Amino acid sequence: MKLQRAHAKTLHAAGILSLAELTGIGCALDKIAHDCLDTPCPDSDAEDIHTWLEGRLVESAGDAGRKIHTARSRNDQVAALLVMYAIDAGERLAERFAAFSRICAEQGKKWSDLAFPLQTHAQFAAPGTVGFWALRYAVAFDRLREFTGLCLGHWRQFCPLGSGAVAGSLIPIDRRIQAAELGFREPSPNALLATSTRDECLQLLSIAAQAALHLQSLAADVIAFSQTPFAWTIYPGAFGTGSSMMPNKANPDAMELLRGESTAVLAAHAEAVLLLKGLPSGYNRDLQCIKPIVRDAVEKLLSLSDMATAFMGALDFDRDRLAASMDLGAIDATLRMEAKVRDGVALRDAHHAVVEELASAPGKSASATSWAGPPAGKGAQAPIFGPDRYQTLGSASPDETRRVADELLSKLRSAAAPTR
Amino acid sequence: MKLQRAHAKTLHAAGILSLAELTGIGCALDKIAHDCLDTPCPDSDAEDIHTWLEGRLVESAGDAGRKIHTARSRNDQVAALLVMYAIDAGERLAERFAAFSRICAEQGKKWSDLAFPLQTHAQFAAPGTVGFWALRYAVAFDRLREFTGLCLGHWRQFCPLGSGAVAGSLIPIDRRIQAAELGFREPSPNALLATSTRDECLQLLSIAAQAALHLQSLAADVIAFSQTPFAWTIYPGAFGTGSSMMPNKANPDAMELLRGESTAVLAAHAEAVLLLKGLPSGYNRDLQCIKPIVRDAVEKLLSLSDMATAFMGALDFDRDRLAASMDLGAIDATLRMEAKVRDGVALRDAHHAVVEELASAPGKSASATSWAGPPAGKGAQAPIFGPDRYQTLGSASPDETRRVADELLSKLRSAAAPTR
Amino acid sequence: MKLQRAHAKTLHAAGILSLAELTGIGCALDKIAHDCLDTPCPDSDAEDIHTWLEGRLVESAGDAGRKIHTARSRNDQVAALLVMYAIDAGERLAERFAAFSRICAEQGKKWSDLAFPLQTHAQFAAPGTVGFWALRYAVAFDRLREFTGLCLGHWRQFCPLGSGAVAGSLIPIDRRIQAAELGFREPSPNALLATSTRDECLQLLSIAAQAALHLQSLAADVIAFSQTPFAWTIYPGAFGTGSSMMPNKANPDAMELLRGESTAVLAAHAEAVLLLKGLPSGYNRDLQCIKPIVRDAVEKLLSLSDMATAFMGALDFDRDRLAASMDLGAIDATLRMEAKVRDGVALRDAHHAVVEELASAPGKSASATSWAGPPAGKGAQAPIFGPDRYQTLGSASPDETRRVADELLSKLRSAAAPTR
Amino acid sequence: MKLQRAHAKTLHAAGILSLAELTGIGCALDKIAHDCLDTPCPDSDAEDIHTWLEGRLVESAGDAGRKIHTARSRNDQVAALLVMYAIDAGERLAERFAAFSRICAEQGKKWSDLAFPLQTHAQFAAPGTVGFWALRYAVAFDRLREFTGLCLGHWRQFCPLGSGAVAGSLIPIDRRIQAAELGFREPSPNALLATSTRDECLQLLSIAAQAALHLQSLAADVIAFSQTPFAWTIYPGAFGTGSSMMPNKANPDAMELLRGESTAVLAAHAEAVLLLKGLPSGYNRDLQCIKPIVRDAVEKLLSLSDMATAFMGALDFDRDRLAASMDLGAIDATLRMEAKVRDGVALRDAHHAVVEELASAPGKSASATSWAGPPAGKGAQAPIFGPDRYQTLGSASPDETRRVADELLSKLRSAAAPTR
Repeated sequence: MKLQRAHAKTLHAAGILSLAELTGIGCALDKIAHDCLDTPCPDSDAEDIHTWLEGRLVESAGDAGRKIHTARSRNDQVAALLVMYAIDAGERLAERFAAFSRICAEQGKKWSDLAFPLQTHAQFAAPGTVGFWALRYAVAFDRLREFTGLCLGHWRQFCPLGSGAVAGSLIPIDRRIQAAELGFREPSPNALLATSTRDECLQLLSIAAQAALHLQSLAADVIAFSQTPFAWTIYPGAFGTGSSMMPNKANPDAMELLRGESTAVLAAHAEAVLLLKGLPSGYNRDLQCIKPIVRDAVEKLLSLSDMATAFMGALDFDRDRLAASMDLGAIDATLRMEAKVRDGVALRDAHHAVVEELASAPGKSASATSWAGPPAGKGAQAPIFGPDRYQTLGSASPDETRRVADELLSKLRSAAAPTR
Repeated sequence: MKLQRAHAKTLHAAGILSLAELTGIGCALDKIAHDCLDTPCPDSDAEDIHTWLEGRLVESAGDAGRKIHTARSRNDQVAALLVMYAIDAGERLAERFAAFSRICAEQGKKWSDLAFPLQTHAQFAAPGTVGFWALRYAVAFDRLREFTGLCLGHWRQFCPLGSGAVAGSLIPIDRRIQAAELGFREPSPNALLATSTRDECLQLLSIAAQAALHLQSLAADVIAFSQTPFAWTIYPGAFGTGSSMMPNKANPDAMELLRGESTAVLAAHAEAVLLLKGLPSGYNRDLQCIKPIVRDAVEKLLSLSDMATAFMGALDFDRDRLAASMDLGAIDATLRMEAKVRDGVALRDAHHAVVEELASAPGKSASATSWAGPPAGKGAQAPIFGPDRYQTLGSASPDETRRVADELLSKLRSAAAPTR
Repeated sequence: MKLQRAHAKTLHAAGILSLAELTGIGCALDKIAHDCLDTPCPDSDAEDIHTWLEGRLVESAGDAGRKIHTARSRNDQVAALLVMYAIDAGERLAERFAAFSRICAEQGKKWSDLAFPLQTHAQFAAPGTVGFWALRYAVAFDRLREFTGLCLGHWRQFCPLGSGAVAGSLIPIDRRIQAAELGFREPSPNALLATSTRDECLQLLSIAAQAALHLQSLAADVIAFSQTPFAWTIYPGAFGTGSSMMPNKANPDAMELLRGESTAVLAAHAEAVLLLKGLPSGYNRDLQCIKPIVRDAVEKLLSLSDMATAFMGALDFDRDRLAASMDLGAIDATLRMEAKVRDGVALRDAHHAVVEELASAPGKSASATSWAGPPAGKGAQAPIFGPDRYQTLGSASPDETRRVADELLSKLRSAAAPTR
Repeated sequence: MKLQRAHAKTLHAAGILSLAELTGIGCALDKIAHDCLDTPCPDSDAEDIHTWLEGRLVESAGDAGRKIHTARSRNDQVAALLVMYAIDAGERLAERFAAFSRICAEQGKKWSDLAFPLQTHAQFAAPGTVGFWALRYAVAFDRLREFTGLCLGHWRQFCPLGSGAVAGSLIPIDRRIQAAELGFREPSPNALLATSTRDECLQLLSIAAQAALHLQSLAADVIAFSQTPFAWTIYPGAFGTGSSMMPNKANPDAMELLRGESTAVLAAHAEAVLLLKGLPSGYNRDLQCIKPIVRDAVEKLLSLSDMATAFMGALDFDRDRLAASMDLGAIDATLRMEAKVRDGVALRDAHHAVVEELASAPGKSASATSWAGPPAGKGAQAPIFGPDRYQTLGSASPDETRRVADELLSKLRSAAAPTR
């Protein structure tokens, strides 16, 4: 509709449509828009939505309708609508990324002094906090929001409308009018490029893939934190189910589905590449098939983002079980090593010293070909690291976590007044 | 080489090569093969390996060399060599699948009475044995070996050689001679199909993807079993490394790399599909690019299979830590429910009864919106399930595990005399 | 439904359901099936379709309904239903492959003496016939039909039902009854494998990818044959559209859409691999997400196959334009070279001789760094190759094309009485 | 090396390394760098390159070497090196994109009045020029260069070094020193994110995929333009080969290989996604496998870009054959329609009028269910469109093509002084 109005205005400026005809088109479009509120998908024999809309315009606006398709083709219409869709989707995604980043930063602050073992290689590695973990997602999605903003600026440069079927039109229209009306900075400089390619869609799908990758990683983390011997999470009941056979089971279904459904978003970029591969320049009807790929990926990502935001808001952790875990895996080893370094021992020597201390500790297997964490401890009454240690623990300390979270929240607040 | 001999024999039968020329070609091929032992990749100006080989034949066998390319093209040569490669690769893979299946079955027997919690949704679910877990891979790879055998039979049907560039040749050769010499049942019936398509490669890559999927699942299992609070595995030291920063860490690197490197094998099918998409019928030079895709995937899978076989042979489990885990997660709940069923209670009623028993048990959170496993137990002196229970536990019982393993091992022994 | 009946029968044999209860379940299932004809997607609060069905059975059959879930889980139900779906889909696909192969063979016969230039590297290469081209697809799809048959046999071996949630059940049921009722040869030997993996789905998707690859290649061929300067096809109007801007255009839309929509089928295998990657053994809820991937790919392939079959039946070729093309590209060069070989010249020498003849021919650029086909000829009054040449032209000759087509049609007729 | 120096400088500022030790490290690095010129891949028992380098530093710089690994891990080193690699690769790619854009713009100017039929749906559609076609690639790669610049700015924000293994370090170093030395704006705010994720690599691969998609489209275009009945190109001989069987063939091999080898670049993004999918937070060794994926894709794209640039410089077109094509496909239909529009006829009416004119033209099939282009014309002596028409033909006119090319060339010149 917006595109029709922009085009009509351009045709009027070129003298193709009179002022009366322009007004007629405008009224007809209002009417059609109004009708579509009731029946969004009208039955029709028309070849496609574009032809249908032109037919309706002829019905309502007479001769003016027969002129509306002047100096354009379905090819450039579709190309323009797809870039406009990408821009709209990018804006909507950026908002969800901000919302998800915000809840992660807020929960990160709340959990900033909740100590637990950070892991590498799925092994307890070093002490950290749940808030530090939550900030991993807050920062990731803020960064993705910023990247989306860069892409949006890039996409708003060139307006494909006016490229015609493949090489523009003889009718002397001023494409800058269309471009400005539709929010672009200038008309696209090459009609063959504009009608043949779908670069904005690919970039949008690449953003979506990155977001989906972070979301499924969140899911993998929560599932891991919820494993039977961990049970770190107080998993929100609304996001889980029981078992039909096993009365003892309560399963983190929503997170499994988040991980599983992310796949469709992750796979969309490759599917679009596969679609475009092998096509020669110039519009080919194959290009039509990119629409469901892009729309399905965007819609799914929007709903997964919403679900993840709601989930993060509902999630909590079991402090006792977290604390008990701090006994395991000798996760203070790096701290002990670094304490020696601060006492002047060279790092590599300090490393060897702590390895030997650990090897001679009771409960540690001495076998050269095996390793295993120490047996489950007696339970930790309190976090084993005093406040002074946290003061100095780099980016994972409570203070640093709160500082980063506050900075992020303040940045997100100022970004919330978007610069569309 | 084998292909050259088969073709020379066919040309001789067609009267193109005299007996002396056929013998000359044979000697020349022997000589070239011998030279290649020293320098497998000779420097040359030749356009490709086929042209180089023809040049060498002309050098060694004179006029006979100038006739060897009669009634054939590089197109059908390459197509034939690729199917022959697929057959050879399929045979080699089937052997590795058998070897891996065998070690899993053997370890499965050894671990058949080693009780541990089976998991669903990454939650302790029901009692099983490590042997039962190992059999999952033994059966999977035996089944994949059988499927590979079906494919091999399919691939040995049609011999592409003699298809020429695109439409065979006017020279009346008997393609059945070539086919038989190269181990095929008959000549391919359509030259355009034979030279344009790479179906055998795709099927080979699809087998490879399935194998890689099982291998990375094995890796994911072992990594999960080795997590700090689990430490079920006695992880073989030769397959792990330490940390450069954290003196306490010993990491399951080989399994992480198995999971990571499987990706290249998993991705190969999609890459080949992408390569072939959009090509018209008839040989296109793009087809050449399938060679590195297939070869790299096959070589990588062969080495990953070998590594996985060696790893399974070296892996062991910590019986005490396994036993201690049996206390967690109320994993006997299904057994308790089924005992009620055997006493005549309807299943759904028995399920509700056990759910209520668990909810009122001490240490279980009563919160409607949360769940968590019971806190770590006091350590299990002995498996909590008596032998009688195992007698009746379906496919996860020790007896059943041993029976399935024995059947599999006997089947693999009889398959070891392959029916090539 | 079939699965419910098979399970009920098994529970009856195990003494869990009385004969009256078994009958009650049977009647209830009849009723539910009947109701579903009216409202296939009932509104419900049930967690999923399995729970809904159990609820309906309790309603209709009372206590028997509360027993139906004995010795099974949703996990093994879903696994069994998916293999059953794969088998059903494989059978339906095999029928479509046969139908498409049949129309290609029939058209191949009809077009068996319609000479036209075969191409390699998108260059006119050698003489062939349109029938020979059509047979490329007839043979490909017959071969794929046979491969599908091999897979079907493989999938019918193991019945997952009775695997329970992860490790079977304590209830002593005879799983062979279920297996036989559902058309499998035996119960699956490892419950963890049966509930964790989706190998049959992957194999089905790999078959689908191969079929889609052939279909999009057909589309690429037809689009190429319909290009403006070719215009070999008499493109069926029902499968094309005009242009909104260019009055001169008539576009091969159906073939472009066939090529484009094949992408979704081609991409499904990779999406399923991506879904399964990284999952540990034991049912994970992620597995649920494979259902839409498989179903969408199968349904799309079925409809694309139907469309392709209808299209091939409607397609025809313009004999005059085909004949005119035979003048171009010196496509008799191979024949001329092979005539020299039959006169005793060594192949490589004959090749050089014809290259020189062509280089000195009028209208051929002599530039070392350029090449171009000869200018468009004056139009061909008659096929330039006499019948005697076709007699000897290998697999592309009319006689050979008819022979292969007849063999194929006869084979398809005997396969039409399927051995399910 | 650069990273080692930056880290040493930071350790010196933190008082870990004395000035003498810092100098010693610097000299040792110079020596190692010098030695590596001779043997870039030294044999070693070291676990990896990082450990090897530390060993060499201990050898050369003694105790200072044993301190160099203070406050860092291999995890953050690798993460930093990968972002630095992405930045370097992005810069190199941006230069190649500029070079390719430049040659396309220069050739576009040269070919700006070379009329030929533009195509949609692989059908002749409307008149354009070869220069207009070349500009499609000039604009695409300039746009991709700009997009790469946006990404480079984004990647230069956060320096991962100092993130340690997973949670930074207790040693109070000033990470801003490292960041500045390595060209980043600030230290990364969350160590878990920095060491767990590979977003920059994914974005780099997404850029590479877009470039590869354009390159393979170029290849598809050139192959199509070189088809036997077209023969529009004067294909540069250095980029093609002959046929081993068919003396008449000269094949556009380089373009087929460009299209085929692009596949590996196109597939890399999906492979990286597959690798990362399913991994929990915290460094996992799987991440190592992203290195060959990224490096192979970048190196291949660099060489394909160079080849494409050289090819575009060597390509030329056959003016006579282009001119002859302008007779076909009634490609002036849009112009005739638009002439009527300028005379005041409504577009839709003008469209119908021209459709009827074409239908009644001689040589056009009247069949409702078939269509075909008119038979090949008598050859065009001159372009059928006079200069006045080109003056008004939108973006495909010679003047407009030259204007866009000049603007682009001037922009590329000013961008050539890069703002690194």
